Amino acid sequence: MHVALTGPTSIMSESAMQKAFEEYILQLQHKIVTALENLDPNAPLFFRDRWNRPEQGGYGISSVFSTPFSSTPATTILEKAGVNISVIHGTLPPAAVKQMRAYHDTLPYDPDSQTDLPFFAAGISLVIHPRNPHAPTVHANYRYFEVRDPADKSKILAWWFGGGSDLTPSYLYEQDAQHFHATLKAACDEHGAALHPAFKAWCDEYFFIPHRGEARGIGGLFFDDLCDREHKHLPNAKPDDRPWDPEKIFAFVRTAGDAFIPSYLPILERRAHTPSTDAQRHWQLLRRGRYVEFNLVNDRGTKFGLMSPNSRIESILMSLPEVARWEYCSDVGADADSDEGKLLEVLKKPRVWVV
Amino acid sequence: MHVALTGPTSIMSESAMQKAFEEYILQLQHKIVTALENLDPNAPLFFRDRWNRPEQGGYGISSVFSTPFSSTPATTILEKAGVNISVIHGTLPPAAVKQMRAYHDTLPYDPDSQTDLPFFAAGISLVIHPRNPHAPTVHANYRYFEVRDPADKSKILAWWFGGGSDLTPSYLYEQDAQHFHATLKAACDEHGAALHPAFKAWCDEYFFIPHRGEARGIGGLFFDDLCDREHKHLPNAKPDDRPWDPEKIFAFVRTAGDAFIPSYLPILERRAHTPSTDAQRHWQLLRRGRYVEFNLVNDRGTKFGLMSPNSRIESILMSLPEVARWEYCSDVGADADSDEGKLLEVLKKPRVWVV
Repeated sequence: MHVALTGPTSIMSESAMQKAFEEYILQLQHKIVTALENLDPNAPLFFRDRWNRPEQGGYGISSVFSTPFSSTPATTILEKAGVNISVIHGTLPPAAVKQMRAYHDTLPYDPDSQTDLPFFAAGISLVIHPRNPHAPTVHANYRYFEVRDPADKSKILAWWFGGGSDLTPSYLYEQDAQHFHATLKAACDEHGAALHPAFKAWCDEYFFIPHRGEARGIGGLFFDDLCDREHKHLPNAKPDDRPWDPEKIFAFVRTAGDAFIPSYLPILERRAHTPSTDAQRHWQLLRRGRYVEFNLVNDRGTKFGLMSPNSRIESILMSLPEVARWEYCSDVGADADSDEGKLLEVLKKPRVWVV
Repeated sequence: MHVALTGPTSIMSESAMQKAFEEYILQLQHKIVTALENLDPNAPLFFRDRWNRPEQGGYGISSVFSTPFSSTPATTILEKAGVNISVIHGTLPPAAVKQMRAYHDTLPYDPDSQTDLPFFAAGISLVIHPRNPHAPTVHANYRYFEVRDPADKSKILAWWFGGGSDLTPSYLYEQDAQHFHATLKAACDEHGAALHPAFKAWCDEYFFIPHRGEARGIGGLFFDDLCDREHKHLPNAKPDDRPWDPEKIFAFVRTAGDAFIPSYLPILERRAHTPSTDAQRHWQLLRRGRYVEFNLVNDRGTKFGLMSPNSRIESILMSLPEVARWEYCSDVGADADSDEGKLLEVLKKPRVWVV
């Protein structure tokens, strides 16, 4: 895919990047949903749900897998999954701009302004919760954001890309962790040696649950605010490593997005039919409770979405598992030599999986 | 119970109120746990767990009911319950003081201060999630807070009481709603006619989930920052209605706390054995998902606890249900004439249950 752009300021005229990014996430969504459906031919297909944003502009397509509630355990590979895209535009009131600046410091903000900023946002966001306790949950998200001058909407005030992908197992298989990280690292390395170390570390930092003192999962990639300016998360990047040019960043994002299927599907295929016990299901549901805690308490994207007026709650909370469980002072995993304890150890001390 | 206090400044010398409040919540905890245990003689007893706070000072006693994970549905009246007390003291760093002022504006705060403020906090907090979908979840909390002068620890800088109780049914029984509210209203009315209307409205305001546009449940009482100063939530209180005197406030808090058992146990007894279907259990688990959302996203107490260093996470998150469920765009309750739809209606438009 080639996008005819010459520089950071020209890309927004004619919305070339908007259009190119929208096309990219639409085809990536289709590829991922199809790959998941092909994996389990006896399971129901994903439910495709297109929604429009009548009050401001834009649309989204949710592709969702779910199982009807039943007292009989279901036998599908997936328990709950959503592969969603959204392409929206509208205006950001100053309060929202201020909040956004906390993590997008390139955003212009005038506290005295009464003017809303026109914005465009497009992204693909997916979460897959398999049924088998040995098969890990996975999350990925790639997004493009653009803010325009309210006085001259053809003028770009700020633009950036964000994204990443991370794995959340209930049971640690080193082979899976290495495969996942190695696939993402190879995708990064195509675009400069500085990217993977930076985005791997950023992922460990982001997906941390402070009140539990542990990570949500075993990491992957995370990046945000990638644009034509210096970034504190890439302090040592040499000029060749820098994806500061929008075309280069977009090329990197595409490589990372395309790496999703090869990074995860082989793991899901390998673990989906592993025999498991009631005790292992129990542990999986406790881990899903932690997943809910991170998403509702710590995840910046979820928090921003829940606070934004007119946001689509069902899409934002699609990431929550079908079932989660909480127990007071559970001692599952307390034995460091147990399989559950081994997972906790790596959640408390993130490991380097590939060098 | 009588506490020898003559005025707001004297109550803290000798810590008379601290001691009296601690005694009160200890015996209330015992009474409530015993009443719940007597209701279901075949169920396991509550697990009593005393913890100490080694880094700063204080202790807590958690009394917890839970059911071991099993693929066979359990048959106890309760599914998960916690009746906890804590009595702690320590120091609040300026950042924590600043946060607290958002809802306790009587707290003195100097942004330039490098000094931590000594504090004392005691409270009883309970959440009961019954197993039967026809039996409502209930929550109650009564607390006393005190901040002292770091230069002279015998001097009280601020003190206040907070608390309340609220009911969260999955199915609406008007008889239950009326009984619950009438019992709490009678408790309030003993201490002035202004209290119940104010604290009922405050409860509807507090237990609202903005991102869902609905209340967590059908309300009850909520109050905070009750002390010897004017309060915006009681603007029309006549002098006789005002529980501004610490002894009077404490007397009101005791009456409200004592009303817990008569407000809730008759409802639990009445509904615990109602025949229920898989579909009703399904709806109950979806409602528990909303309970988790409120507690993790909106509840100020939970958020404050999760952000506080050295807080006891297991006690704070004891309120979460044993199991919760999330579905994308669930249509259960979409029919306004269904039993589920009738609950949603009252969650969207809080009703006055007793006049």
